[in-house]
Amino acid sequence: MPKNKLLAIFAPLEIAQQDLNAVLQKAVCKKFLPKTLINQGEGCLGFMLVLHGNIRAYIIGENAKEITLFSLKANECCVVCSHCALHSINYHILLESSENTEVLIVPERVFVALKDKYPQLANFTLELLAKRLNQTIATLEQAMFKPLASRVREFLHANQHNNEVMMSHENIANHLGSAREVVSRILKEMEKQGEIKLSRKKIVLQEKR
Amino acid sequence: MPKNKLLAIFAPLEIAQQDLNAVLQKAVCKKFLPKTLINQGEGCLGFMLVLHGNIRAYIIGENAKEITLFSLKANECCVVCSHCALHSINYHILLESSENTEVLIVPERVFVALKDKYPQLANFTLELLAKRLNQTIATLEQAMFKPLASRVREFLHANQHNNEVMMSHENIANHLGSAREVVSRILKEMEKQGEIKLSRKKIVLQEKR
Repeated sequence: MPKNKLLAIFAPLEIAQQDLNAVLQKAVCKKFLPKTLINQGEGCLGFMLVLHGNIRAYIIGENAKEITLFSLKANECCVVCSHCALHSINYHILLESSENTEVLIVPERVFVALKDKYPQLANFTLELLAKRLNQTIATLEQAMFKPLASRVREFLHANQHNNEVMMSHENIANHLGSAREVVSRILKEMEKQGEIKLSRKKIVLQEKR
Repeated sequence: MPKNKLLAIFAPLEIAQQDLNAVLQKAVCKKFLPKTLINQGEGCLGFMLVLHGNIRAYIIGENAKEITLFSLKANECCVVCSHCALHSINYHILLESSENTEVLIVPERVFVALKDKYPQLANFTLELLAKRLNQTIATLEQAMFKPLASRVREFLHANQHNNEVMMSHENIANHLGSAREVVSRILKEMEKQGEIKLSRKKIVLQEKR
């Protein structure tokens, strides 16, 4: 039962059995195809645990450029989402599945009631939020102070499977807050240096000789 | 008694009188001259309330460039600081007084014990942290997607007193994550357009005709 994965999170927080039962009973499982906007319109979904897949949290600027703030992988919880349930996060953070993704959601009302009852859960939420703040500051630092070529190189290495990155140049630009043309120029320079090989919708990292 | 200002924050959180008394008794008042690094070396000071003055929270990149994440003005609390007391915020956020500043500090140990006892205080802390996350995301969006010239213009208007900004070009660059030369070039262009007048260590905003 995937719902039992919630127990691993909530049980150590000294939550009474009947409240744990309510969490398991009220939690819902949702599946998303790749590139699905998860929180459009409906605001916040509640407390979310990623079962498998990957969710990208990002913002869009006035000029329609995007930048990824952080990603949520399997077994990670979404505190931004759970917290915006409390109407404290006004910023428009968009959540999008990067691949086939399955999540468990504890509805807002259930989660908030528990958080108000158990200081341990409030502290847990606080720690998750602190983690997102750290990640956002790290993103800010990289975006501001690191040359884009280094960021493209790191991004490719962080997102390769078997030395392949199945993403368009535009996708990569959207992760890094840049423009497609600029990323394409950097990728072509990397190909010239023998670091990568470019083909349609795929980038192959070359072994270092 | 400035310490009573803490009551305005803690009393509505349904904290028992004896715990409130402990907060008032243990709180310490600290004064900082302008441009003093507040959290150097000693990690976190505890829960901080700004009585008057201004504190700038910023990061420094590898290339020694700086960018301001957010500012704390009179009557604002520092949750980042109180929270790093919990060892969840690892990112090196620096706090510096921008002017003569006076703060009240509830030491880490006192604050954490209270937060663990009162879910309302944990929720209050959560909301403050969410606010800092919002501010950091707003900073990121501006820095990534807004032309520097617009950001310089907005910064001048936000930091003027009687149409004067008493800051060096380097100070402004440090707030905005840019370099002095770039900011100087923008300021000179603004002067040419009749928007501002530059003089030593002072920028005067011109009335729109």
